[in-house]
Amino acid sequence: SIDPQRLWDSLMDTARFGGTAKGGICRLTLSDDDRRVRDWFKRACEAIGCTVTVDDCGNMFARRPGKRADLPPICMGSHLDTQPTGGKFDGVLGVLGALEVMRTLHATGYETNAPLEIINWTNEEGSRFAPAMLASGVFAGAFTREFAYSRRDRDCKEFQSELARIGYRGSEPVGQRKIGAMFELHIEQGPILEAEGKMIGVVTGVQGMRWYEVTVQGQAAHTGATPMHLRKNALLGAARMVEQIDAIAMKHAPDAVGTVGLMEVRPNSRNVVPGEVFFCVDFRHPDEAVLETMEQEFRAALKATIEPLGLSYDEKRIWDSPAVRFDAEMIDCVRGGAEKAGYATRDMVSGAGHDAAYIARVAPTTMIFVPCAGGVSHNESESTSFEECGAGAQVLLEAVLAYDQR
Amino acid sequence: SIDPQRLWDSLMDTARFGGTAKGGICRLTLSDDDRRVRDWFKRACEAIGCTVTVDDCGNMFARRPGKRADLPPICMGSHLDTQPTGGKFDGVLGVLGALEVMRTLHATGYETNAPLEIINWTNEEGSRFAPAMLASGVFAGAFTREFAYSRRDRDCKEFQSELARIGYRGSEPVGQRKIGAMFELHIEQGPILEAEGKMIGVVTGVQGMRWYEVTVQGQAAHTGATPMHLRKNALLGAARMVEQIDAIAMKHAPDAVGTVGLMEVRPNSRNVVPGEVFFCVDFRHPDEAVLETMEQEFRAALKATIEPLGLSYDEKRIWDSPAVRFDAEMIDCVRGGAEKAGYATRDMVSGAGHDAAYIARVAPTTMIFVPCAGGVSHNESESTSFEECGAGAQVLLEAVLAYDQR
Ligand SMILES: NC(=O)NCCC(=O)O
Ligand SMILES: NC(=O)NCCC(=O)O
Repeated sequence: SIDPQRLWDSLMDTARFGGTAKGGICRLTLSDDDRRVRDWFKRACEAIGCTVTVDDCGNMFARRPGKRADLPPICMGSHLDTQPTGGKFDGVLGVLGALEVMRTLHATGYETNAPLEIINWTNEEGSRFAPAMLASGVFAGAFTREFAYSRRDRDCKEFQSELARIGYRGSEPVGQRKIGAMFELHIEQGPILEAEGKMIGVVTGVQGMRWYEVTVQGQAAHTGATPMHLRKNALLGAARMVEQIDAIAMKHAPDAVGTVGLMEVRPNSRNVVPGEVFFCVDFRHPDEAVLETMEQEFRAALKATIEPLGLSYDEKRIWDSPAVRFDAEMIDCVRGGAEKAGYATRDMVSGAGHDAAYIARVAPTTMIFVPCAGGVSHNESESTSFEECGAGAQVLLEAVLAYDQR
Repeated sequence: SIDPQRLWDSLMDTARFGGTAKGGICRLTLSDDDRRVRDWFKRACEAIGCTVTVDDCGNMFARRPGKRADLPPICMGSHLDTQPTGGKFDGVLGVLGALEVMRTLHATGYETNAPLEIINWTNEEGSRFAPAMLASGVFAGAFTREFAYSRRDRDCKEFQSELARIGYRGSEPVGQRKIGAMFELHIEQGPILEAEGKMIGVVTGVQGMRWYEVTVQGQAAHTGATPMHLRKNALLGAARMVEQIDAIAMKHAPDAVGTVGLMEVRPNSRNVVPGEVFFCVDFRHPDEAVLETMEQEFRAALKATIEPLGLSYDEKRIWDSPAVRFDAEMIDCVRGGAEKAGYATRDMVSGAGHDAAYIARVAPTTMIFVPCAGGVSHNESESTSFEECGAGAQVLLEAVLAYDQR
C-alpha cells in the first residue's frame, strides 16, 4: 500500500514553488518556479535510485529497472506546470502520485517485470505557450520539435530559449525512447465524481478540442471626440463574439463547451476606442462531427457579427486535438485496481486535455481520475482531499502492477 | 508672424521621443521618453531667455517677462504626454505652438505688457494614471496633491515615485503661482472642422465626462471540464456590458458617447473560464442632466446584466468632470485673431477633455482648435498638416497679443 501521508507531504512541500497568497500555484511552464520544482523532482527520484533523463523538449523520465531489461517501461506521467491561477493538484498529483508508487516499491524492494518510469511532461497547460500538451504532442509526433521550439508567450519569449534558460533542454532527442504503456493519474477537474459520490473515474477517452485565435481590427479613436456612428470599435465586435461563442456552446449543450478565456484589448487605454482586440476560442465536444458543426457556426457568426460593424478580422484554427479512446486492457487494469482497493468507480470521458491523449497515439494509455471539490479546477481554490489523493495513488499502484503481471 | 517651418521642425524633432514604427508617439506620462521631451523643452525655452520653473506635480512653466511685473502672466499651455497609440499632435501642438509664439516674440524683440508663460501640464492623457488632466486638476483644486501622488498605473507604480524617478518633482508647491489667463491650442480630435472646411475652431467649452471602474467577479474554472450551466463566466457579463454601454450612448446620440476602452481579463488563459474582469467606462455629454441619466441607465444595466449570470460586481465612479464654459472675452480674442489672420472659424464644444477645462476654474481660459485628418486622434495615424499647425500658432499669437493689449 502507498503511504498517503508521504504523498500529501510531497504535494504540500512542492506547492511552495510558485505558491500564491490564495493557496494555489502559479507555476508557468519554463519559469524559474518550474525549474525549482523540476530540480526537486529530480533529486527525489534519484534519492530512490531512479535514473533521470531529460529530452530536448524538457520532458523528464525517471527510470527504475525491472527484472526484464528487454521490456519497454510501464510509465506513469503527468505535468508539474500549472495555470496562472492553478491549484495544487492539477498535473502535480499525477507526477507525485507516481513518485509515491515508486517510493512504495522502493521501500518494499518489490521488483516489477518491466522497467517503470515516471514522466514529467513539459507545457501541458498551454497557458504560457499554446497549444496545450505541447511536449507530449511532440513526443507522439503530433507536432514537430521545431514547432514547439518556435512557440512564443504573450511577451514574445520563445519556448526554445526559455527551455535552455532554465537548464532543461536535455540531450536525448524527443520521442526517441520507447514507452510500453502510460497511466496518468489526474484530478477530474469537473463535477461528476463528487456529485455521484464515486472515488475513482475510469477514463475511457478524451473529448475533441479545437482552439482558434481571432484578431478583430477596428480603428483606435478618441472616446470623447468620436461620434458613435463614426466608430470602428473592435471591442464591440469582440464582445458580441463572446456572446455568440457562448450561444453556440449552449445550443449543443450539455456535451459541448465553448469559451473565450484570453482577450487582449489594444491599446487598452480608458479614453481610446479599442482599435484592435485579440482573443482565443476553445471549443470541445466528444463527437468530432458536432465539433465540426460548431466550427462552422462560429465562422458564420464571426462574419455576420464583425463585418456589419465596419470591422475586419483574421481567424485561425491553431489547435485540433481529436477525440481519443484509451486502451481497453489498461482500462480493465484501472477498474480492477479500484475494485481491489475497494473504491466505487464511474466510467467517464475527460473534458480536459491531457498528455495521455497524445501518448495514446504511440503506446497503450489510460487515465485514473479522482474527484475535486465542486469540480473546480484552473482555480487557486482547487481542492482534492488527503483520502482522494491517496486513493488515486493506490489505484495507480494496483493498475501498474496488474498491467505488469499480464 | 510665426514661422510655420520652425514649428513643424520642432514637432518632427520631438516626435522621436517615444516615436513608434507606425509614425505615432507612445510617450506615457512620467516615462523615460517623457523625461527626454521635458529636457528638450526646458533647453529650448532657456535658449530664448525664459526661466523654467517646475512645480511638485511636474508641471513646467517657462516665463518671459513683460513690461509690467505687477500683472499675472498670460499663459499658453497643453501637454507633452501621449496615449500608448498617440499621434504627433495631440497636446504637443499646444506646447510647441506656444514655444513658436515665444520664439517669434523673442526674435522680433516684442515686449508684452504682461509676462508670458508656456505651460506643460503633467499627465493630461490619463492613460497611464487615471484620471485625465490630473496635474492641471490639482493646480486648479479639483484634486489634492496627495490624491495625484497616490495614483497607480496598471503595474502598480505610483505617480509620486515615477515623478521623482524622472527628476521632475519640482520644489514649487503646485497651484501656488498666479495665472492671469490661459490659451490652449489643440487639435480638434473630432471630424467637424475638416467636414465643414473650417481652419479654426473657436472653443466655447468642454462637455461633461464621467469615468467608472467595474470589476466583475465570477469563478475561474476549466474550459474543458466545466459544463456550460455550471459556469460563472465573468467575461460573458463584461461582454454584455460592453454591448449595453454602447446601446446607452446610442440612445442619447448624436451628442452622447460611451466607451469601454480598457479591459483586463483574469487570469487571461486560453483554457480558463474567466474568473474576473476589470473594465473602465467613459461616458460624455455636453448636458449634465443627460449624463446623469446615462449613469442611472448604466447602473441599472449592470445590475440587470451581471446578477442573472450568477456573477457579482463592484462599480465606482472614479472621475466626474462637469461641463465647462470658457471666458467670453478670451473667446472674442480667438475669433478676432482668426479673422485678422484670415481663417474661417466655427464655434464648438470640445468632446475631449483638456487641461483648460480645469484651469478655467481658477483663471479666464479658452482654447483654439485646428483640424485633424478624418477626425482621428488617439491613433498613431493622427495627422494635422503643416498649414493647419502654422494657422493654429498664428491665431494663438494674435489672441495672446490682443488679450495683452486690452
Ligand atoms: N488537464 C488540463 O487542465 N489540461 C490543460 C489542457 C486543457 O484541457 O485545456
Ligand atoms: N485631449 C485629450 O485627448 N485628452 C485626454 C482626456 C480625455 O478627453 O479623455
